[in-house]
Amino acid sequence: MFSQTVHIRVRYGETDQMGMVYYGNYASYYEVARVEALRQVGFRYRELEEEGVIMPVLENHSRFIQPGLYDELLTVKVMIKKLPGVRTTFNYEFLNEKNELIHEGETTLAFLDNQTRKPCRPPGRLMEVLKPYFDEG
Amino acid sequence: MFSQTVHIRVRYGETDQMGMVYYGNYASYYEVARVEALRQVGFRYRELEEEGVIMPVLENHSRFIQPGLYDELLTVKVMIKKLPGVRTTFNYEFLNEKNELIHEGETTLAFLDNQTRKPCRPPGRLMEVLKPYFDEG
Amino acid sequence: MFSQTVHIRVRYGETDQMGMVYYGNYASYYEVARVEALRQVGFRYRELEEEGVIMPVLENHSRFIQPGLYDELLTVKVMIKKLPGVRTTFNYEFLNEKNELIHEGETTLAFLDNQTRKPCRPPGRLMEVLKPYFDEG
Amino acid sequence: MFSQTVHIRVRYGETDQMGMVYYGNYASYYEVARVEALRQVGFRYRELEEEGVIMPVLENHSRFIQPGLYDELLTVKVMIKKLPGVRTTFNYEFLNEKNELIHEGETTLAFLDNQTRKPCRPPGRLMEVLKPYFDEG
Repeated sequence: MFSQTVHIRVRYGETDQMGMVYYGNYASYYEVARVEALRQVGFRYRELEEEGVIMPVLENHSRFIQPGLYDELLTVKVMIKKLPGVRTTFNYEFLNEKNELIHEGETTLAFLDNQTRKPCRPPGRLMEVLKPYFDEG
Repeated sequence: MFSQTVHIRVRYGETDQMGMVYYGNYASYYEVARVEALRQVGFRYRELEEEGVIMPVLENHSRFIQPGLYDELLTVKVMIKKLPGVRTTFNYEFLNEKNELIHEGETTLAFLDNQTRKPCRPPGRLMEVLKPYFDEG
Repeated sequence: MFSQTVHIRVRYGETDQMGMVYYGNYASYYEVARVEALRQVGFRYRELEEEGVIMPVLENHSRFIQPGLYDELLTVKVMIKKLPGVRTTFNYEFLNEKNELIHEGETTLAFLDNQTRKPCRPPGRLMEVLKPYFDEG
Repeated sequence: MFSQTVHIRVRYGETDQMGMVYYGNYASYYEVARVEALRQVGFRYRELEEEGVIMPVLENHSRFIQPGLYDELLTVKVMIKKLPGVRTTFNYEFLNEKNELIHEGETTLAFLDNQTRKPCRPPGRLMEVLKPYFDEG
């Protein structure tokens, strides 16, 4: 399994008048988290688009357990539980500054050729980076 | 079943560099859609907060079928399939200008007393408005 | 002078924990307001991009007078005070539901050829639509 | 003069279909930049609100020089040029990864008592932190 830990600071504009992170902002946190998780192991999502591959989201699921609060430094555990095929799924667990689980998410993305907008294989470089996490012993 | 149709115009700032609605913006569309759906039958979400009740989101699920495009007037069918109890679930179907289903969503919200932040019953006024849609026979 | 009136409803996600519209969301309101103002006189910004012209913003200025509140239907007066040349300036005045001036803004945009990203003239169709508002006599 | 340097990574959702940072997102960057700048010298904006002071924005000005691009790590120089009184002004200069000036901004904020929503003095703790930067001689 691939697993990395990322930190995200809650911005003021991300709160709403309930005094917590607006529910619609978590999807943006997921994006930051998965991009940073891959960067930490040497892969930049930007490269992928430069090579003509895009990754639109197919499904997104969020479970809200406790409110995220302004200025908190959230800890996000990003996981890929299965080696990517034509699609890949990221899981996220969000902890607040008290180390409480406040949120869980799951995003499934496709790999598409940006020209044809047809499904394609994940780029070789990405697979190279991820494979070691899925090698069995 | 409660069902209403709402229209949302895609804003420029809601697109991303893939040239489509950024996936994270649909949750905000859901919010607009459910608030407008209730307004159409005479209930303002604003009232609810004025009476000390808030409705934080517990779960949110999104399925992305086709891209939403800039300036499109999306048609959103908002449904409540079961009379609200301590929680309520909204379903959404998004059609583009060609009348194609491009997106589906589902949001479950709680009713909380804003002071105690404990679960509470849905306000009487809301139930009055919704009940006729669930009367049998 | 070109002048049109547009209405924008404040979304929940646009508020922040001060209980008012987050200051950063007005620029998005400006975009909606100028696009709708042009639509009302028969010009779609979408067309412009389809013809290979983009309109990046050069300058933006905002003056915050009173808070915008959740669910308010804001009235926005959109003005173009000078016929567009290689750039064009929009002015906005925001009124709340009590008809009080709560916000003023000004945005200057360029016309760029999307291929070369060099300045270009405003499209003929746009000038046709705007000219009658600047005819003297 | 108070001056600090802060880094902000451009998120995917912050781009638009022109392939650059949506103009409306800079105000949110300003917020992050001024909050981080103060944190770097030991002051948390969060404290200020906990003490019953809020800082709504009075004016905001942005000058767009070059596009900000996805995934770039922007360098933001945050400046306070005059010791705060009942209001305070922040200036920002944004550099891209090639060290080019791409954007300038200026925000003026008020200090308000959150209960009365009347102007008040800046909190003593904030002044303590800022004063050394304005000492002459």
